[in-house]
Amino acid sequence: MVPRLTTALSGPLLELERRFLDNAATIERWLRSQWQEHTPPFYGSVDLRNAGFKLAPVDMNLFPGGFNNLNVAFLPLCVQAAMSAVEKICPDARNLLLIPENHTRNRFYLQNVAQIAAILRRTGLDVRLGSLSPEITAPTTVELDDGASLLLEPLVRRGDRLGVDGFDPCMILLNNDLSAGIPDILRGLESQHLLPPLHAGWAVRRKSQHFAAYDDVASDFAKLIGIDPWRINPYFASCDEIDFHDRQGEDCLAAKVDGLLTMIREKYREHGIDETPYVVVKADAGTYGMGVMTVRDAAEVRGLNRRQRNKMSVVKEGLAVSQVIIQEGVQTFEEVAGGVAEPVVYMIDRYVVGGFYRVHTARGRDENLNAPGMHFEPLAFETCCTLPDQRCDPDAAPNRFYAYGVVARLALLAASLELERTSLPAGVA
Amino acid sequence: MVPRLTTALSGPLLELERRFLDNAATIERWLRSQWQEHTPPFYGSVDLRNAGFKLAPVDMNLFPGGFNNLNVAFLPLCVQAAMSAVEKICPDARNLLLIPENHTRNRFYLQNVAQIAAILRRTGLDVRLGSLSPEITAPTTVELDDGASLLLEPLVRRGDRLGVDGFDPCMILLNNDLSAGIPDILRGLESQHLLPPLHAGWAVRRKSQHFAAYDDVASDFAKLIGIDPWRINPYFASCDEIDFHDRQGEDCLAAKVDGLLTMIREKYREHGIDETPYVVVKADAGTYGMGVMTVRDAAEVRGLNRRQRNKMSVVKEGLAVSQVIIQEGVQTFEEVAGGVAEPVVYMIDRYVVGGFYRVHTARGRDENLNAPGMHFEPLAFETCCTLPDQRCDPDAAPNRFYAYGVVARLALLAASLELERTSLPAGVA
Repeated sequence: MVPRLTTALSGPLLELERRFLDNAATIERWLRSQWQEHTPPFYGSVDLRNAGFKLAPVDMNLFPGGFNNLNVAFLPLCVQAAMSAVEKICPDARNLLLIPENHTRNRFYLQNVAQIAAILRRTGLDVRLGSLSPEITAPTTVELDDGASLLLEPLVRRGDRLGVDGFDPCMILLNNDLSAGIPDILRGLESQHLLPPLHAGWAVRRKSQHFAAYDDVASDFAKLIGIDPWRINPYFASCDEIDFHDRQGEDCLAAKVDGLLTMIREKYREHGIDETPYVVVKADAGTYGMGVMTVRDAAEVRGLNRRQRNKMSVVKEGLAVSQVIIQEGVQTFEEVAGGVAEPVVYMIDRYVVGGFYRVHTARGRDENLNAPGMHFEPLAFETCCTLPDQRCDPDAAPNRFYAYGVVARLALLAASLELERTSLPAGVA
Repeated sequence: MVPRLTTALSGPLLELERRFLDNAATIERWLRSQWQEHTPPFYGSVDLRNAGFKLAPVDMNLFPGGFNNLNVAFLPLCVQAAMSAVEKICPDARNLLLIPENHTRNRFYLQNVAQIAAILRRTGLDVRLGSLSPEITAPTTVELDDGASLLLEPLVRRGDRLGVDGFDPCMILLNNDLSAGIPDILRGLESQHLLPPLHAGWAVRRKSQHFAAYDDVASDFAKLIGIDPWRINPYFASCDEIDFHDRQGEDCLAAKVDGLLTMIREKYREHGIDETPYVVVKADAGTYGMGVMTVRDAAEVRGLNRRQRNKMSVVKEGLAVSQVIIQEGVQTFEEVAGGVAEPVVYMIDRYVVGGFYRVHTARGRDENLNAPGMHFEPLAFETCCTLPDQRCDPDAAPNRFYAYGVVARLALLAASLELERTSLPAGVA
C-alpha cells in the first residue's frame, strides 16, 4: 500500500518520481556498474523521509533489526538475495555464526534474529547464534512469541577463529552494532569472513562519514538523471568535541545549525516551498534514535535545560556523546491510518528485499519517528520495490516503491564507499 | 496450491519429500558448489512428473515459453534472478536483443515474450525484439490480448555483430529453439553474448544427451542424500537411424522398449508398486510434444498403422524424425480441478522463479500432457519453491514445491553439463 501524501506539494515529488521512472533503465545500469566497483554490505536498512518535494535517506543501518516486519510474501526475495551474497563471499560455506544484540528481552528484536536465521538456513547454511552477552555463559533457550525458540550460545574463541561449542563457522554475521565498543574476542579473525566489518559498528562508524559518502553518490546520481542533488540529499554538518553536560561546543553547534538553516531556507525559496526549515541534531555515532533533537532556530541549542542536555548526552549502552551530526530535517508528508509514516527499506547484498512503514499516531511530520519509548506500528510494504510500471502514474504503488528502492540503494552504495574509506588498518581489525 | 495426490502411494513420495526436507541444507550447499563449477543456462523450464513413488523430470526446455503463466507475485524473483544473471554475463550491458519464435500468431506465446522482455527491462536493459521470420521484413507491431503490443523488427547483421536497425546489443537472448536449423545470420557472433548457445537449439540438441547428463547428476545427488537414484530419474534409451515411414529401425525400437519395460517392472517389484509399466517414445530432437507415443508393450511399436507412423515421423517445422528417445513413463498422480496435472518449474540463472501446473481434464495419468492440439489450463503455483518448512508435513505446500524446485534444479544442472559436453567447435558456432 502507498500511504496518502497529505500535502499540496505532490507536484515536485511526482516530478522526481517521474524522473526515476523515465530513467529506470539508466538507473539500473548505473547501479550495476557501481556494484562492479564497490562491494555492498551484506545487508542494511535505510530510513527514508518523503517530504513531497524531497525524498531522502536520513539514516543507514548496517545491522538491520526489523526483518520480522517485512511482508512474508517477500521472503523468497530475501532467500534469493542471501544465496547470491553467500555465493560471492564464501561459496563453500557450511556454517554461519550469527551474533545478535545483547538485549535478549526485546521480543520484537528476537523475532528479527529468528527471521535472519531462517533466511540464511534456506540458503543451505547451518546457522547458530553466538552471544556477546556476559549473561550467556551456557547455551540458553529464549522463547519467541510465535511459539518457536532461539538457542543462544556463548562464543568460543580458538586461536584466530571464533565459533560456539563444536561449531567452526566460515562466516560470522554481526547483527550487533558494537555500540559498546569492539570486543577483543572479535579482533584478529583474519581466517573467517566477518560481516559487516568491525568498522561498520558504532564503536568506529560515524554518521557524518556516511553522509559525506552519500554526498558523492547523490551528486553523481543527480547528474546522471538531471536533477538537483538536494532533492535526494539532506544538508548536513558535524561538530566534534561536544560535551552537553559542560555546555562545551555550543558555539560550534549554534553556528552549524544557523548555517544549515540558512542554506535550507534558500533552497525552499528557490523551489517555492512554503515550510519552516528545521534541522535534526543527533549523536554522530549510535542508533535507536537516542540523543536526537529537532531544532528550528540556532538559539535553541544554546538554552538547553538540564533534562535536554541529559537526553542528548548519552546514547545506547550509556556511551557519552562527543560528536554530533546536524542534518537537514526532511518532513514526512506520508500518512497511514491517521499517523505520520516513514518508509524503511531493507536490502540484502545489492537487492531491495522489502520494507515497512513506521507509523506513529502521536508524532508530528517533522519529528524523529525512531525514538526510544515511542511506539510505532510497522506496516509492511505490500508491493515490492523492483517493478516500476511506466504505464501507471508516478505515485502508483509500484512506482512509489521503486523510487524508495532507488534512493535506498543510493544510501547502500554510500555505505559501501564509506566502509572502503574508513577501513581499519589490519592490526586493529 | 498443492493439488491433491490421488494415490494410495503417498507413502514413498512423502518419504522422498521428507528426505529432501531433512537434507535441505546439504542440498543447497551441494547445489551451490555445483554452480561454482558449472554455468547454468540463462533460463529454463522443466516438466516434472509426480507418481507418488517417484518425482522426476521428463523434459528440460532451454527456451521457456510460459513466463506468462507464472504467478505475478513471483515477478520480483524473476527480476532479481535476471539481475544476477546479467551481472555475471555482461555487467555493462545496455542493450539486449530478444529473438522469439516465428509463430507470431500464438497469442499465449506472445504474452510470454512480452513477459520476458518486461523482466529484462526491469534489470536496466534496453530490450528489442529481432525476428528470424522471413515475414518480418519491416518493423511490425503485434497486438497482445492485454492491450499492449510488441514491436518485431527484422534482424540486421553487420560484420560479426547482430542487431536490429540502430541497435547494437551486448547480449542476444534466444527464445527460439532453432528447430528449423541454425540460421547463418546467427553464426560467428564471437563478440556478442549469444544465450543460450547455438548448440542448445534443437538443430543440434538431443534429449538423450540431456538425460545422459541427468543420469550423472541424479546419481551424485542420490548418493548425497542416500536415496535410490531411480526415485528421481526415469530410465531411458535411444535409437538412431529410425525411419517411421519405411519401418526402418523397428527392431532397435522394439528391443529397447522391451529392455526398459523389463527394468521398470523389476523396480516396481523391488518397491512394491502396483502399476503397469510404460514407456514414452519421443523424437530425440524437438519439442511441443510432437512425435510422442505411449507404449506398454514392445509389440506396439511393430504394428504401427499409417496414421501412427505419420504422427511419429515429423516434429515442429516439419523436420523428419530419425532419432528417438525411449523414456520410462512416469505417471502423474496429481489432480487439480478434476484434471490430471503436471508441474512445470521455471528457472532463471540458478534460481527457481516460479512454476505452474498443466491441467488436462481429458487425459489420463500416464499420458503426455504437452501435446499439440491439446488444451491445457495453466495454473500458477501459489507458493514459491525456496521456502521449505521443517515444521510442516512433507506434502505441505512449501515442502512439495521445495521438492519440485530441487528436482528442477537437478535437471538445470544436467543441462549445464550437457551444454558443456556438446559444445560446438568454434568454427561452427
